[in-house]
Amino acid sequence: MPSALFAPLFGSPKVEAALSNAAQIQAMLDMEAVLARVQASLGVIPQTAVGPIVAAAKVDLYDLTRLAADCAIAGNTAIPLVKHLTQQVATNDPDAARFVHYGATSQDVMDTGAVLQWRAVLDLVAADLDRAIAASARLAATHRDTAMAGRTWLQQALPLTYGLKVAGTCDALLRHRERLMEARPRVLALQFGGAVGTLASLGPKGPAVAEALAIELGLAPAAPWHGQRDRVFEIASLMAGIAGSAAKFAGDTALLMQTEIAEVAEPTMPGRGGSSTMPHKRNPMISATILGAAQQVPGLVATLAHAANGEHERAAGSWQSEWTALPDLLRLSAGALHHLVTLLEGLTVDRDRMAANLALTNGLLMAEAVQMALAPHLGRLVAHDRIEAACREAVATKRPLLDVLAEDSAVTVHLDRAALAKALDPATYLGASGAIVDAIVARAAKIAPRA
Amino acid sequence: MPSALFAPLFGSPKVEAALSNAAQIQAMLDMEAVLARVQASLGVIPQTAVGPIVAAAKVDLYDLTRLAADCAIAGNTAIPLVKHLTQQVATNDPDAARFVHYGATSQDVMDTGAVLQWRAVLDLVAADLDRAIAASARLAATHRDTAMAGRTWLQQALPLTYGLKVAGTCDALLRHRERLMEARPRVLALQFGGAVGTLASLGPKGPAVAEALAIELGLAPAAPWHGQRDRVFEIASLMAGIAGSAAKFAGDTALLMQTEIAEVAEPTMPGRGGSSTMPHKRNPMISATILGAAQQVPGLVATLAHAANGEHERAAGSWQSEWTALPDLLRLSAGALHHLVTLLEGLTVDRDRMAANLALTNGLLMAEAVQMALAPHLGRLVAHDRIEAACREAVATKRPLLDVLAEDSAVTVHLDRAALAKALDPATYLGASGAIVDAIVARAAKIAPRA
Amino acid sequence: MPSALFAPLFGSPKVEAALSNAAQIQAMLDMEAVLARVQASLGVIPQTAVGPIVAAAKVDLYDLTRLAADCAIAGNTAIPLVKHLTQQVATNDPDAARFVHYGATSQDVMDTGAVLQWRAVLDLVAADLDRAIAASARLAATHRDTAMAGRTWLQQALPLTYGLKVAGTCDALLRHRERLMEARPRVLALQFGGAVGTLASLGPKGPAVAEALAIELGLAPAAPWHGQRDRVFEIASLMAGIAGSAAKFAGDTALLMQTEIAEVAEPTMPGRGGSSTMPHKRNPMISATILGAAQQVPGLVATLAHAANGEHERAAGSWQSEWTALPDLLRLSAGALHHLVTLLEGLTVDRDRMAANLALTNGLLMAEAVQMALAPHLGRLVAHDRIEAACREAVATKRPLLDVLAEDSAVTVHLDRAALAKALDPATYLGASGAIVDAIVARAAKIAPRA
Amino acid sequence: MPSALFAPLFGSPKVEAALSNAAQIQAMLDMEAVLARVQASLGVIPQTAVGPIVAAAKVDLYDLTRLAADCAIAGNTAIPLVKHLTQQVATNDPDAARFVHYGATSQDVMDTGAVLQWRAVLDLVAADLDRAIAASARLAATHRDTAMAGRTWLQQALPLTYGLKVAGTCDALLRHRERLMEARPRVLALQFGGAVGTLASLGPKGPAVAEALAIELGLAPAAPWHGQRDRVFEIASLMAGIAGSAAKFAGDTALLMQTEIAEVAEPTMPGRGGSSTMPHKRNPMISATILGAAQQVPGLVATLAHAANGEHERAAGSWQSEWTALPDLLRLSAGALHHLVTLLEGLTVDRDRMAANLALTNGLLMAEAVQMALAPHLGRLVAHDRIEAACREAVATKRPLLDVLAEDSAVTVHLDRAALAKALDPATYLGASGAIVDAIVARAAKIAPRA
Repeated sequence: MPSALFAPLFGSPKVEAALSNAAQIQAMLDMEAVLARVQASLGVIPQTAVGPIVAAAKVDLYDLTRLAADCAIAGNTAIPLVKHLTQQVATNDPDAARFVHYGATSQDVMDTGAVLQWRAVLDLVAADLDRAIAASARLAATHRDTAMAGRTWLQQALPLTYGLKVAGTCDALLRHRERLMEARPRVLALQFGGAVGTLASLGPKGPAVAEALAIELGLAPAAPWHGQRDRVFEIASLMAGIAGSAAKFAGDTALLMQTEIAEVAEPTMPGRGGSSTMPHKRNPMISATILGAAQQVPGLVATLAHAANGEHERAAGSWQSEWTALPDLLRLSAGALHHLVTLLEGLTVDRDRMAANLALTNGLLMAEAVQMALAPHLGRLVAHDRIEAACREAVATKRPLLDVLAEDSAVTVHLDRAALAKALDPATYLGASGAIVDAIVARAAKIAPRA
Repeated sequence: MPSALFAPLFGSPKVEAALSNAAQIQAMLDMEAVLARVQASLGVIPQTAVGPIVAAAKVDLYDLTRLAADCAIAGNTAIPLVKHLTQQVATNDPDAARFVHYGATSQDVMDTGAVLQWRAVLDLVAADLDRAIAASARLAATHRDTAMAGRTWLQQALPLTYGLKVAGTCDALLRHRERLMEARPRVLALQFGGAVGTLASLGPKGPAVAEALAIELGLAPAAPWHGQRDRVFEIASLMAGIAGSAAKFAGDTALLMQTEIAEVAEPTMPGRGGSSTMPHKRNPMISATILGAAQQVPGLVATLAHAANGEHERAAGSWQSEWTALPDLLRLSAGALHHLVTLLEGLTVDRDRMAANLALTNGLLMAEAVQMALAPHLGRLVAHDRIEAACREAVATKRPLLDVLAEDSAVTVHLDRAALAKALDPATYLGASGAIVDAIVARAAKIAPRA
Repeated sequence: MPSALFAPLFGSPKVEAALSNAAQIQAMLDMEAVLARVQASLGVIPQTAVGPIVAAAKVDLYDLTRLAADCAIAGNTAIPLVKHLTQQVATNDPDAARFVHYGATSQDVMDTGAVLQWRAVLDLVAADLDRAIAASARLAATHRDTAMAGRTWLQQALPLTYGLKVAGTCDALLRHRERLMEARPRVLALQFGGAVGTLASLGPKGPAVAEALAIELGLAPAAPWHGQRDRVFEIASLMAGIAGSAAKFAGDTALLMQTEIAEVAEPTMPGRGGSSTMPHKRNPMISATILGAAQQVPGLVATLAHAANGEHERAAGSWQSEWTALPDLLRLSAGALHHLVTLLEGLTVDRDRMAANLALTNGLLMAEAVQMALAPHLGRLVAHDRIEAACREAVATKRPLLDVLAEDSAVTVHLDRAALAKALDPATYLGASGAIVDAIVARAAKIAPRA
Repeated sequence: MPSALFAPLFGSPKVEAALSNAAQIQAMLDMEAVLARVQASLGVIPQTAVGPIVAAAKVDLYDLTRLAADCAIAGNTAIPLVKHLTQQVATNDPDAARFVHYGATSQDVMDTGAVLQWRAVLDLVAADLDRAIAASARLAATHRDTAMAGRTWLQQALPLTYGLKVAGTCDALLRHRERLMEARPRVLALQFGGAVGTLASLGPKGPAVAEALAIELGLAPAAPWHGQRDRVFEIASLMAGIAGSAAKFAGDTALLMQTEIAEVAEPTMPGRGGSSTMPHKRNPMISATILGAAQQVPGLVATLAHAANGEHERAAGSWQSEWTALPDLLRLSAGALHHLVTLLEGLTVDRDRMAANLALTNGLLMAEAVQMALAPHLGRLVAHDRIEAACREAVATKRPLLDVLAEDSAVTVHLDRAALAKALDPATYLGASGAIVDAIVARAAKIAPRA
């Protein structure tokens, strides 16, 4: 696989393990083993078949390369796996081999196996979400009052605090946590219906087997959903949302690390962020990795949105397109989140540089503050135009805005130089930044016990 | 706009109205009017300013073509709208004009205006979801026992009932309803933060204004989310999921309407589904329209997933990309759902044709049933191979599977011809179809009161 | 249509006109008129039918709102248009009305009508491409030797010239021009085949009609391609590539306009780039508009890539999805290019600021230059490590790199302070920038005559 | 890597090999080896360095797992590879080690290495394209006159020949071949510019090194394009177009293989297309695999379209997103094409079934033919309405269209029963099918020599 070289870069190690080839086959074997156990307890198959089937349901017993080759002929992984599993069982107990995969169809095993992997992934994602929430809350609290330039359209606009900026990310992560908890019981649902979803091959015991199977696997019982792929898209879009928020923070971090701005820095380690030819550089390596992973997610989400439209009881194409697109999406988005944790937990903030950049415009940044101070006297629009003119003059003459305004009698009749100076001090114009940070940090603290 | 010709085709009339240019501007004006009212009641602006601002906050007073032209210069719709609104107020009351858009920024008005439109759309979507749930439940109940061929990989596989097929759609729609109710309070949130989200321009009263504004507008209060676009992606993916389920049903309907299958038919009306050159045709016009709309949604979802990564406090590009992509996505997906209602409420089912198609394979379709009947005697795999051979012979010799099997003593030692004939009757092999339909229909009935 | 408010913002006026509803209908009418003319000249229909048909083939004669409403019933625009056209002809000449749309099918008219619009769009795009090539070549030539910081991973890396940067865009645009010229004759192909592409309804004269029709319309003759949509995807991806290159330049421009960098500035006009609340701002409005348009294109490309997979001779869903996705893609990408022309023709470059930013790192930026000067003496890797250490010390002690290096005897044994100072001068390390610019500008000049 | 299980299924073995991890590293090492050779011949590095560097440039000498782990720290594959390569060279010749990767930057090696892989892929794709063209031409010629039902909107429409259907695919493949040949010299271009594209580290010899490097590697010389990614998108969209055409044929094949239609069949092999539970099935396994691969491509194209917008001289995120998205796209699309070859070369066509399906509508399919026969007498629209009514009656009364029409004196006054019967014979209404097939087959034959 060409991209194996990049798997450690983009991914989270634990999620990579949960989505490995071995984990995929083991999840399918788990399904087969529990199916046998459940069917025996309901008298569908003999109790004696259980032991041999369970004993054979170990991924280590199988040659994954051969499985992959057989999959290329059979068209899916379940057909060869069931064949190999049956042979394995048969070597020990030919009678038991008759009851392997009893009454199930390929999609039951592949879908439910996938759901078992989703559960492992969602648990890891939930843990990383909690870490990211905690880290962003800490960072926001620490920088509750650290003034910096707010930037809109990539231009300095007005002051805010770095705490407010990070709190925005924390707030989004709290929403993702809520979404994950809502989606979890819905997407972690058993798929079991036999060839066309009727459970007919199990006769009257079909529903009982399905119910017991769900309970034993710890999944939600559900009507067969082989043809309805909304759950697949739901987990895909849940994770895509998380990747998007990770990318947002990473993108801002990369921008704030620009040589000319240099307000924050990624955590370093030997060999990270260096360049092969420019020894002085401190590249936003983690941020770029998050972005590199996250930017692949929207396209994959589109693929999985398209896959909803499969034909009849089992699609010829759409289902197949899920097989690599969804794991890739899960790996990339979980990896983006995992790297976000690293970023949030180790980020360095340069308050002095933030203050210096705030002073860069010689007062222009505080134009709105003066405008608002003047608005009650002149009206919003007149104040706006007056300040706009003063700003233009300050730019043209390269003088501080304070000096220009202090010469405008239409202004000084309402605000004298001292009042103007105060209106131009960023520290006086942070508004509700602190209060907003406090509220978000408090909400983050409430979820802490679960983490 | 080039696509206006197709708006009535792909869209839902009410949703089109809720997303019209006029509705968009009115929503922004509503925000401005309520802002003035709230600010006056909190003493931020004089009470006398409210009347003139509210009076001017009517879309009919503005020239939308001029607004669009001004938007091309200003870069967004809020700047020219605020300018025109201020002028309009000023013609009646120059003093009041000073308090238009007080302390707000363009994005506050555009985002919150959009959220007000989302609410209207979600209400219409919820109503259509309920209608689609009710219609699919009715259809599933009616055809609870209507046997037809289940098809996997586009091949006849095993029998099921049409009720089960439709119940799958009903089940998915019930999940979408649940998702919509979960997402609704989260996405319908006020965006109000001033230039960089600090509310600084309103001084200490900022948070109170924001809270009152949310209450008055009937939106959830929220920390400013101008830079965190997860809500945008949430409504986009919610609607994309719905479009996907609509497309699934439409795709199956178009397939079932094929000349050679002809098991269902779309509701007709004069002029619909005809062809300009083939007078006999009954095109799956509604289904194709649903598919044509729904197939545009995944790409738009990708666009909105990408838009998460906007820079700092207001993006230069990503936010802008939402302006047309999200409304287009809402229109297309709501339209797909709306047409699904039409389809579900008027679909005709041809039971005879379903029965005839079930008989088409001369018994091959029931191979699994015989296999399952033989499996306890021969083992699953041996039974599978035996039946596979019989099927091959039946195909090669063009004889009924029953005749072939009845000649195989390895089979007849366990099942005689009568037992084989019974095993080959589709009606005996519908499994849990009825029970699954009943459970889903019962769940659909429980939500009925709200509809 | 909700997005009409943003059409003037994102689009190019001429392309908007070429893709307007009226232009779309007129293109279809042009096809019908030329079809009649050609068929009469080949004796397929009577010569007397031509006049009345041509006279009625004027978009002004039709009510587009009613057409759109009828389209919602018929499922496409051709069926109602042919009906209205026939009625219009019939009011003047009932006999001629019998020969309207003779032997054609809906898709012939819709596809070929679309191709006629593509031609208009491609001509406008070619003209804008030539303007953009000329403007970028001029800008590159002007700034052939204007040194600035090259930036990788958003970090200052090494010096280059602004001319080289812009020449990269010019080079890409020259490739797009080449691609357009290659694709043009292939995509501007007649679609004419009748109901299923056999031309059967025209009897033996079918091929002759098709050939004459192509010639008369100025399109390439082609086998019917109703079912093969590669041409649709080709124009879509051609335009998406152009949008991508426009976005690349716009993104860099927005970054270079950042308050802290301020090396370039967009052309201004009254009301553009201002903010409703921050009077001092100079937003990268054109760049953000280009990005806002271009970021919507990848999703639309995905939609059109999916549309390749339509069923049989005319798709139920995929073809329909092209109807709005392709025009939207053309408008957004042509708009991005059009705004790129404005940007390139009016961009202001601040050489002093570029020089000042180059000096910002106190020599660190020139680390590679010194490293390369040392490499022949120490080896590339040892030199790299040595310089990396010196950079670290320069950062830690906030001293110029020159001073740190001048104290390292392992360095000074090979390069003395004067040699080091020279190695640290950006002007000496611009490499082949000038030569590369010259080569690209020369190539751009060669295409000028056509423009 | 989770998707390794599916690589043999979706991919082409040779393309998988060309895109393997080992091939990727070898391509980068090839670049380093040739760079050393070229630089020595130009006197940039000593001739003695070449041997040791070339000897070490063998992928077998390196531990790919360790490389992947180091990549996760360094942020790309080039940094650790150059480090390991340098160490390897140093063990033999410490002096030579000083000249490894001389004057190059990571992106030079990664991009040019990728281009070398693209070349291998394009050569394999060109060969498969030629095979697919030849096979489709053969199939079209064989079935030049095999009548079958043309289907629009999934409804039987009018007769055509299977040859015409396949010729449409052949025609599209010929266009793809043309596109590939046009794109090949443009995309197979050297990327070599050093850190920011100025070649400064090589002093005045930079351009000469670049030119010689291109010649030695057999790539087109080109201005450094690290920041301009249109070539990446060009190869991506070229391959996406091919995948789309493969999907089109696969989709139609799956539809034609439906149990109820059964007009064609995929080539079989033991174990392919079977089902684990339904022994009689002949699943369209190859077609579904093509579709499963091809449906993942549009999303990947969108990712690569987005990647155009990287920042400045080297992106922080966009470039990274190409690293797995592009190889995945190449593998999936080349795999789709490769399976298309198998499909085209082994497809079985059932002429009898095609004829039987043509007769299924009892004449309705030929409605247009009769309409065209009547149009000269009644006018197109009147004829259309008359036939439409007759069809409705034929459907309602389940009688042959011939019988219904033969009773309508308004019809029989122009066409008697014999004339009607002739007009209703599909063989008389295949139009230009044969001529179109001949023309396309002739064009395919012309390219044969190269194959």
